Amino acid sequence: MGLGQDEIQRIDAYWRAANYLSVGQIYLLDNPLLREELRPEHIKPRLLGHWGTTPGLNFCYAHLNRVIKARDLDMIYIMGPGHGGPAAVANAWLEGGYSEVYRDVTRDEPGMRRLFRQFSFPGGIPSHVAPETPGSIHEGGELGYSLAHAFGAAFDNPDLVVACIVGDGEAETGPLAGSWDSNKFLDPVGDGAVLPILHLNGYKIAGPTVSARIPEEELLQRFEGHGYHPIVVSGDDPEYMHGRMAQALDEALDMIADIQRRARTSGLEGRPVWPAIVLRSPKGWTGPSEVDGVPVEGTWRSHQVPLAQVRSNEEHRRMLREWMLSYRPGELFDGEGAPVEALRSLPPEGGRRMSANPHANGGLLLQDLRLPDFRDYGLEFEGHGTHIGEATRVLGHFLRDVIRANPETFRLVGPDETASNRLSAVYEATDKVWGAELLPVDEHLARRGRVMEVLSEHLCQGWLEGYLLTGRHGLFSCYEAFVHIVDAMFNQHAKWLKVTRGLAWRRPIASLNYLLTSHVWRQDHNGFTHQDPGFLDVVLNKPASVVRVYLPPDANTLLSVADHCLRSRDYINVVVAGKQPALSYLSVEEAILHCTRGIGIWEWASTDGGGDPDVVLACAGDVPTLETLAAADLLRRLFPELRVRVVNVVDLMRLQPAGEHPHGMSDAEYEALFTSDRPVIFAFHGYPWLVHRLAYRRRNHANLHVRGYKEEGTTTTPFDMVMLNDLDRFHLVIDVIDRVPGLGERAAHIRQRMVDERLRHRAHTREHGEDPADIRDWVWPY
Amino acid sequence: MGLGQDEIQRIDAYWRAANYLSVGQIYLLDNPLLREELRPEHIKPRLLGHWGTTPGLNFCYAHLNRVIKARDLDMIYIMGPGHGGPAAVANAWLEGGYSEVYRDVTRDEPGMRRLFRQFSFPGGIPSHVAPETPGSIHEGGELGYSLAHAFGAAFDNPDLVVACIVGDGEAETGPLAGSWDSNKFLDPVGDGAVLPILHLNGYKIAGPTVSARIPEEELLQRFEGHGYHPIVVSGDDPEYMHGRMAQALDEALDMIADIQRRARTSGLEGRPVWPAIVLRSPKGWTGPSEVDGVPVEGTWRSHQVPLAQVRSNEEHRRMLREWMLSYRPGELFDGEGAPVEALRSLPPEGGRRMSANPHANGGLLLQDLRLPDFRDYGLEFEGHGTHIGEATRVLGHFLRDVIRANPETFRLVGPDETASNRLSAVYEATDKVWGAELLPVDEHLARRGRVMEVLSEHLCQGWLEGYLLTGRHGLFSCYEAFVHIVDAMFNQHAKWLKVTRGLAWRRPIASLNYLLTSHVWRQDHNGFTHQDPGFLDVVLNKPASVVRVYLPPDANTLLSVADHCLRSRDYINVVVAGKQPALSYLSVEEAILHCTRGIGIWEWASTDGGGDPDVVLACAGDVPTLETLAAADLLRRLFPELRVRVVNVVDLMRLQPAGEHPHGMSDAEYEALFTSDRPVIFAFHGYPWLVHRLAYRRRNHANLHVRGYKEEGTTTTPFDMVMLNDLDRFHLVIDVIDRVPGLGERAAHIRQRMVDERLRHRAHTREHGEDPADIRDWVWPY
Repeated sequence: MGLGQDEIQRIDAYWRAANYLSVGQIYLLDNPLLREELRPEHIKPRLLGHWGTTPGLNFCYAHLNRVIKARDLDMIYIMGPGHGGPAAVANAWLEGGYSEVYRDVTRDEPGMRRLFRQFSFPGGIPSHVAPETPGSIHEGGELGYSLAHAFGAAFDNPDLVVACIVGDGEAETGPLAGSWDSNKFLDPVGDGAVLPILHLNGYKIAGPTVSARIPEEELLQRFEGHGYHPIVVSGDDPEYMHGRMAQALDEALDMIADIQRRARTSGLEGRPVWPAIVLRSPKGWTGPSEVDGVPVEGTWRSHQVPLAQVRSNEEHRRMLREWMLSYRPGELFDGEGAPVEALRSLPPEGGRRMSANPHANGGLLLQDLRLPDFRDYGLEFEGHGTHIGEATRVLGHFLRDVIRANPETFRLVGPDETASNRLSAVYEATDKVWGAELLPVDEHLARRGRVMEVLSEHLCQGWLEGYLLTGRHGLFSCYEAFVHIVDAMFNQHAKWLKVTRGLAWRRPIASLNYLLTSHVWRQDHNGFTHQDPGFLDVVLNKPASVVRVYLPPDANTLLSVADHCLRSRDYINVVVAGKQPALSYLSVEEAILHCTRGIGIWEWASTDGGGDPDVVLACAGDVPTLETLAAADLLRRLFPELRVRVVNVVDLMRLQPAGEHPHGMSDAEYEALFTSDRPVIFAFHGYPWLVHRLAYRRRNHANLHVRGYKEEGTTTTPFDMVMLNDLDRFHLVIDVIDRVPGLGERAAHIRQRMVDERLRHRAHTREHGEDPADIRDWVWPY
Repeated sequence: MGLGQDEIQRIDAYWRAANYLSVGQIYLLDNPLLREELRPEHIKPRLLGHWGTTPGLNFCYAHLNRVIKARDLDMIYIMGPGHGGPAAVANAWLEGGYSEVYRDVTRDEPGMRRLFRQFSFPGGIPSHVAPETPGSIHEGGELGYSLAHAFGAAFDNPDLVVACIVGDGEAETGPLAGSWDSNKFLDPVGDGAVLPILHLNGYKIAGPTVSARIPEEELLQRFEGHGYHPIVVSGDDPEYMHGRMAQALDEALDMIADIQRRARTSGLEGRPVWPAIVLRSPKGWTGPSEVDGVPVEGTWRSHQVPLAQVRSNEEHRRMLREWMLSYRPGELFDGEGAPVEALRSLPPEGGRRMSANPHANGGLLLQDLRLPDFRDYGLEFEGHGTHIGEATRVLGHFLRDVIRANPETFRLVGPDETASNRLSAVYEATDKVWGAELLPVDEHLARRGRVMEVLSEHLCQGWLEGYLLTGRHGLFSCYEAFVHIVDAMFNQHAKWLKVTRGLAWRRPIASLNYLLTSHVWRQDHNGFTHQDPGFLDVVLNKPASVVRVYLPPDANTLLSVADHCLRSRDYINVVVAGKQPALSYLSVEEAILHCTRGIGIWEWASTDGGGDPDVVLACAGDVPTLETLAAADLLRRLFPELRVRVVNVVDLMRLQPAGEHPHGMSDAEYEALFTSDRPVIFAFHGYPWLVHRLAYRRRNHANLHVRGYKEEGTTTTPFDMVMLNDLDRFHLVIDVIDRVPGLGERAAHIRQRMVDERLRHRAHTREHGEDPADIRDWVWPY
């Protein structure tokens, strides 16, 4: 096999065109076809962009287009080095896809001028492969997640091939290094293929990369050790490289086709060895080889803008012109500035173009989940706070049937914690995906399944993002403390969603749903390192249009919240819920009403008779709700005349002013719940200042006193944990006594009793190693 | 070579003793030597701990002790599966180190009873290898960082060997997967050695591990691909395994000694291939092989507590007794309950014991940095706000001389951004460490050096933590947005420091210093993905005793802050500073005074004549300070009679109430700056609500109006960025007009002018692609 000279010429022309358009984007304000002499005013005053990775991205794009056409492939392209934005934009424009989305950027000279001018320009487009870029599901601004996204896109897309450029800088990151093992979770029957292309251009911003500076033998051993068959394409002579890349792609795609055929027909024994390409080509390939006396092409100096003084330095300007003309634009663009016919006929058509593939605009393909009626899974109601259930276990039954009803469009990911988080009912419907070796002792492991467990929060998050971005649904169940591991990935996904919400052509995708459990208050086995409710603080820094936070206090509210989240679009929903046996407070119908409101007075626990209270006890989260109800119970017995109102918060966003968040309450609504002048003792699941941050503008804020986690903890009993943080029922009563005036002479005496109770409980715990039975088995009065 | 039968017996006895003590910790309240029948009341009511990994950790410990003695090694032990806490505690007790630190936990029967009882018990010790555990620098509660910590400990410790157990669960995490390449950054001359031991016990909490379920050939290729020589120790027969492990350790330590000898004498060509051990042994080895009819030893079911109902189930209790007696405690402990003489003589002595090695209590070894006088590096003063400097470039000169003065105890780490962050003066004194291949084109790369660059924030953080925990100093320079990648690692280090502050025997270590630059306001090349100032929000969730945040507004204040941070102990200091050319506001002497106060009125920019102001303009961060001064300049010209006070905040903690943070101000101090009743317009570097969170308790809080980053951004000009977030000078003037009463009739007119100015500037930017010259080159009036 091999490419004919003609085909090489055509691909080379296409590559030259993309390179020309990339350089133009970085430098030119005007004179896009260099029909005039290049003058300072044609040059952008601020040269912002990254040339170094761009020619390599263009090279792969051109070659992928050839195989897409030759094999009628359904392919998307993930560019790990997303700062090579000009490459994606250039190719989208060449293919015509860009002009279909952005009508004013026409495929002619005026359009080319706009294309150049808008890049990295105020009011224009970002320098990266951003949401604004057609064909992108991966911005790559923060490095490390390309391969995880690629696998996520491939899951349950049996006919899709995801080509994924991994930059050799990115390859140094932990998340990327951990992503190679994704091939142990890819089912060759039901999933598509990922073709990783490790692009060794040798340098990062300022120095060499590790994988480019180890012996090739070692590099190949890495691939083999991760179960890949590496194919090396190495050189700098374009003609040779075109031939070699074409060969390599044919070899790789033949292997993929063969694996899939065997797996899907005769049956494939064992785990397939998937191909991967190692492309070694110079950084800034085809750019200026030397500038101001130092080498640039093939070094880190070509990372951003190889010629930096083009506006002021005539020699630089001459070099830029020479550089651009070296691509021979006269052969590439016609009199109107459109790509010549030979180029226009080269790329695939319609949805086969990588810039227009519907998988890269997943909302186009998204279908609603088929959801069973969550009411059917609710805990039976036997009175408020009288029945014990495990919230996540109840949810597990619902999820089991979600999985049954959506066998190809829903995945549950988590770091080896599905059972530990008590969602194990899902294994009645499905298994954990496991492509590595199986042993007879294994349970719930299979080559295909809806549950994905790997001890890497990064992979869980990256896979799920790739899955959602290509139009499917999912849930990430995670230990609360360790979701901080993906703070940065959350941030980037939130930014992506925020931008896509402003792009009408990007169709809404399913929300990213987090179930945070094994939370701060119940780390009985582990202790301090496992106690951190601060993800909520990270989440609330992101725009109100994107983030939602729910703290259902029991099983039935969790069901209602989960149903709502699974139906939603373009959000990041964070649900915090307990997995331990805990009281159930509401019937399913009450739970629906309460969750719909997001916040509400629990009359059955209040003693204000629906009138003005003396004090408001507010709570959010399962453990704080328990302590609040126990405090209300104590108060009812200790101060029978005291009018106590209990308010429970499920939807944390309700606390914000209406102008700050769509779920926010007006001041009138807020004061109807929290009063305008009574003390509010708020028991909160997380760090207490988060509630203040949400509520500081409210009139009664000076009266708001929040208890929460204040970074006190260790391996101890559940009740000792709340005592360590002054969130316990006795302390809440003390807080009431300290803040409500006129409780009479008994108050000081009762306060001392509460102090003594705390000491007694602490002593009991330290003596017996467990909470006193009256605390442990406490049930709200019938 | 090989171990004699005698030695095998002795090591086996030691291992049995450690296993016995581990099981005892998990289960027993009393009857530690099983001298009585085992009754329910001898069993802990809550069984909390992790058995699965423990016997493997004990196995390695016993064998490492042998080689420490045989070779007089200086060795510490990092236990990646830190939840195997009983192992570390058991060995420390056997060696006597535990009783030296915790006097009441004596090495006899009463002490053993305490040892057992305290584990995972309220008021006792955590279940993990926590700060409370002698010999630990790595808690391992959150998985992924063991190997990075190990390398950090080995840097600049040429005589130290760091044995590092990597769990096969942990091996799935991204950060761990990325850590193997640390060997490209280890200098065999000036650094010590790391001996990784990948412990394949095959299972995580609920399922198998990837690396245990791939063909051994693939596994070995991984090691070879990462430049290691793997030595496999595999089996379950103790006698065989003792012999094999001893052989493997001898082979590995011979290799290490040989590499170091050659590197340090004759000179070693190329990068050495370091040894690594692969230990394949059953999870829960020597524990119950079957419980209630299902296999336990060698499966995930032994992860936590193999026998779960020991208190209530007589059969389980019988099995526990049988299990413990299988270690033959009668041979291991004497009549007093102390280890028999044969055991006592086995471990090394004094500081050679891994539980008492001073490197694992780094503060014991810590020496002050030799710091040059930072005053000598300050920008010359030519008037407030009249001179331009690049803050981080100025800092670079100081750091250069810090490096010169401390050639073996200070490292600068960062993800390939030292030059990009303009600290390149350090290359006048040192190089970047680079153990991989070198090419003639390379600059500032060498086998040894003080700068460590790798495109992995996880490695930067992990290396630095390991380096600090073993008693050295350093600085992590990072793009502000991407420090979120290590949010979780920051959290864990803060937790570690918080706990060690309560342990007198743990000596203070150098602070972890972050320099966050390339910040949100100046991401000219990149855009939205690179804009995130939210790390401060994460930091402020951690205890006041540990965290410090500084926002020096210019070069001289940055110098003063840096000097302070480098002298401090046991803190995490976060310094946010710009790298772009920016105005210098204070002379060095003024900067020292300002930074010492942490907050202050800038009289030279104020027009309140030292009296009561009409409005306070507050600012924190370089760009907000610039906009605030420009706003003050506008106000002085537009409203000559308006009394404006300018307050600048360097030390963010000053805003908190005195009771909340040691740096916090009293209400009187606060009101002396911010008044008790005047509007305060606060221009903040980060998310605006963070300032509210700090200041909500202040009397004048209702008058506090904060501008900051509100998640609006893209690739655009610096001034457009501040305009997008309403932080620009014109908007600050509008904010003043909207909040100060009695500005007269002209106010509405001036307000409109400000609105028009903003539109004019936006139009200019969109037309010309750069900020207007009067904005860009704005200088505070002389």
